[in-house]
Amino acid sequence: MTDIFETKDEVLEEVMDIEAKNQQFDEDVDIIKELLEEGSYFKARDLILSYNEVDIGEIIEEILVDFSVDKAVIIFRMLPKDVSVEVFSYLPGDDQVKIINAITDREIQYIMEEMDFDDKIDVLEELPANIVDKILDKTPKEERKLINVFLNYPEDCAGSLMTPNYISLQETMTVQEALEHIKKMGMDSETVYTCYVKHGGRELKGIVSLSALVISEPDVLVSDLMHTDYVYINVYDDQEAVAEVFRKYGFIALPVVDNENRLVGIVTVDDIMEVMEEEATEDIERMAGIIDFEDNDKDYLDTTVWQHAINRLPWLLILMVAYIFTGMIITSFEDKLSEVICLVAYMPLLMGTGGNTGSQASTLIIRGLATDEVDLSDTLKILWKEMRIGALLGVLLSAFNFLRVYFLDGNGLLVSLTVCLAMLAIVIFAKMLGSMIPLFVKKVKLDPALIANPTISSISDAVALSIYFVMAHIFMGL
Amino acid sequence: MTDIFETKDEVLEEVMDIEAKNQQFDEDVDIIKELLEEGSYFKARDLILSYNEVDIGEIIEEILVDFSVDKAVIIFRMLPKDVSVEVFSYLPGDDQVKIINAITDREIQYIMEEMDFDDKIDVLEELPANIVDKILDKTPKEERKLINVFLNYPEDCAGSLMTPNYISLQETMTVQEALEHIKKMGMDSETVYTCYVKHGGRELKGIVSLSALVISEPDVLVSDLMHTDYVYINVYDDQEAVAEVFRKYGFIALPVVDNENRLVGIVTVDDIMEVMEEEATEDIERMAGIIDFEDNDKDYLDTTVWQHAINRLPWLLILMVAYIFTGMIITSFEDKLSEVICLVAYMPLLMGTGGNTGSQASTLIIRGLATDEVDLSDTLKILWKEMRIGALLGVLLSAFNFLRVYFLDGNGLLVSLTVCLAMLAIVIFAKMLGSMIPLFVKKVKLDPALIANPTISSISDAVALSIYFVMAHIFMGL
Repeated sequence: MTDIFETKDEVLEEVMDIEAKNQQFDEDVDIIKELLEEGSYFKARDLILSYNEVDIGEIIEEILVDFSVDKAVIIFRMLPKDVSVEVFSYLPGDDQVKIINAITDREIQYIMEEMDFDDKIDVLEELPANIVDKILDKTPKEERKLINVFLNYPEDCAGSLMTPNYISLQETMTVQEALEHIKKMGMDSETVYTCYVKHGGRELKGIVSLSALVISEPDVLVSDLMHTDYVYINVYDDQEAVAEVFRKYGFIALPVVDNENRLVGIVTVDDIMEVMEEEATEDIERMAGIIDFEDNDKDYLDTTVWQHAINRLPWLLILMVAYIFTGMIITSFEDKLSEVICLVAYMPLLMGTGGNTGSQASTLIIRGLATDEVDLSDTLKILWKEMRIGALLGVLLSAFNFLRVYFLDGNGLLVSLTVCLAMLAIVIFAKMLGSMIPLFVKKVKLDPALIANPTISSISDAVALSIYFVMAHIFMGL
Repeated sequence: MTDIFETKDEVLEEVMDIEAKNQQFDEDVDIIKELLEEGSYFKARDLILSYNEVDIGEIIEEILVDFSVDKAVIIFRMLPKDVSVEVFSYLPGDDQVKIINAITDREIQYIMEEMDFDDKIDVLEELPANIVDKILDKTPKEERKLINVFLNYPEDCAGSLMTPNYISLQETMTVQEALEHIKKMGMDSETVYTCYVKHGGRELKGIVSLSALVISEPDVLVSDLMHTDYVYINVYDDQEAVAEVFRKYGFIALPVVDNENRLVGIVTVDDIMEVMEEEATEDIERMAGIIDFEDNDKDYLDTTVWQHAINRLPWLLILMVAYIFTGMIITSFEDKLSEVICLVAYMPLLMGTGGNTGSQASTLIIRGLATDEVDLSDTLKILWKEMRIGALLGVLLSAFNFLRVYFLDGNGLLVSLTVCLAMLAIVIFAKMLGSMIPLFVKKVKLDPALIANPTISSISDAVALSIYFVMAHIFMGL
């Protein structure tokens, strides 16, 4: 079509671009390790400095895995100071502790002074208490007070995400005065792209974007440019709700106010992207019956075997209890089962299909609730929809299984009918159950993801067996 | 601690803040509907205009559900023109078609002219071909050409997300010249916060942030401020990979280049937040055995029963085939089972636990792969970890079940040992299997989420039964 279009081969080549970059990175990390091995620190540093701060953080992580802390600290010290501050803020908590324990108080002080406020809070939240105290000792009194306030917001609320580094303007300022004020503050970061106009003490009056200031004439008043219908969040709003506001409106930053509508800080979109990924991970894990008790966003490999087991045990134990009931249903039918033992062969099929179809429905509803696609007022619509989906799928799957049970397995018509009609009833029932349980959990104000697909499976196991045995009773007189 | 702290009651009250706002919105929507009912259009408009564009879009959606298109179009026309353009871009595709069909060509032309380029592409991608043609007819030739180029990028790649509305600067410009250039371009949007410095024709040389320009002295050269170690993406990079780059580095916008490193557009973070949510939803659905064949991000309620059934059917059918094998394993053991029929009662327990523990492992690994927490090089570490987690959980669950089988159910020691040792072996095996299958799927370059937890369940069903019957053979001589 135009010159930016390429042949299919070229396209495929380019799709691999990111992979190629990652490979280059891995190769360079190997070279850096070799250089450190032979003591060529300066060469290693130069190669490291061809990367940006986030990547350098990853390189330091790799060095800490393979070498002593000393080597990593030597490299860390050889970085330009402004780079090392940024790199430090990107390191995982464990590695930050290692570095802090190995460097001098003076170096710690420098890092803490230079770090952005919100990064500082992130770092301090993750560090052990004794190191936090050590750091706070070296912080000026005023900032120490502010840090303590920020550290005391409950985790996972807007207050724990925000930074107090925002630009305040006055309504009566002209664009020129506003731009000069911004220049004086001298912040070069994403926190500067929206400026906040305050009224009286700290009450938020309106917001004005940096781009609006830049494109306006110097003598225009800030009050003529500012938006007063701004969206804001409360310090105690849950981070998941805050992320949803960002996603819905596509903002770069949002003002955070307290109960008296006083501006206490701002949340920027880069922190929110982390939150969105964390929340999606949490939902996915919860749906698979995993509860993260540590709740510290540790990576899979950094979590101990013991902690992994603890996170996974509760649901498994609860389900153990559920299986006592399933066992009781079977035991009560045992004598009859031994008469027509071929019925046992279809138990996994019916229980499994119930569990899988139910989980499909519950997954869609749980995700729909999380992304505001559906809500409680849609309950009847959802029930009706899932009933019809269940009927449609049930008929198709029953037809397939009739072929199997009657022709392939060569069982009689009565066994075939028992299995297939049970299948139909189970699929319809599982779809309805799977869609309604998350809505019920939401209704009682719990996180729908917490009900977990294993629950759906085990409830539908019990229901599936009951339906199966009822069908066997009807068709085979058992 | 300080005055921004409140009592627990106040905190709880504030946590409900977002909910209260939603309730207020719902109430206002009801009032608006009543006003429309009685024909008070101006009052309705005034209430509508107290909300921002995103919310107004939702109000129009609600009106379209309850009233004729005419009423919605009257309200839409009564909005200030700049508001209606924005509102239009936030409407779902179906509603956009309804509005476009009902308004005049002149109004369509206005909307299309005023919309941001990336919103325009989004809108045109969703509209039916005949309406796209109608709109393109009224677009100036140059822009029509550009729109066609953008519409032709494969869905889900960086090219389909980008906008050509970015600010280009020259290296030789001073800060003052750069700011004047930006002012002349006059864009007030998130696309202006990073400016792109080109070399020669369109080759990207470096980037400079608007904030850096604003805080610098007027006579500084752009070349002294710009970063040349910028991160960029290729037009054909997959949107999931692009989102990962945004999340990792926390950028507001990223330059998109073609194979010759020529700047073709930029992607901004607001579009990426949508992508992150879509990708998480896709992964969650795939893991539950749902494949979105329409792939059009339709809401749950907007998807037809038929389409829902088609999305869910393939995995269910594949699993039907898998259950033929499970059935065969049981059938081959049928005679022996009928001798010790009480073994049947523990089949759901063992199969279910295998499926659940396996899914826990596979879920963590699939998510870990998606968020770069783990990769293929960690295979052995993961295997060793899951083996130990499996052993730990297996011992705990076996002990619990020994109490149940031996004491509660009153079965003999041999039955109890058979069940409990089978449980231990199944849990260890399921953990290893569940963690290794996603890595294998990744190794053969497929999306690990596609293997779906139902697969893990059905494979571990077959394995669980086999282990169970082997144990029965060893301990009970069956």
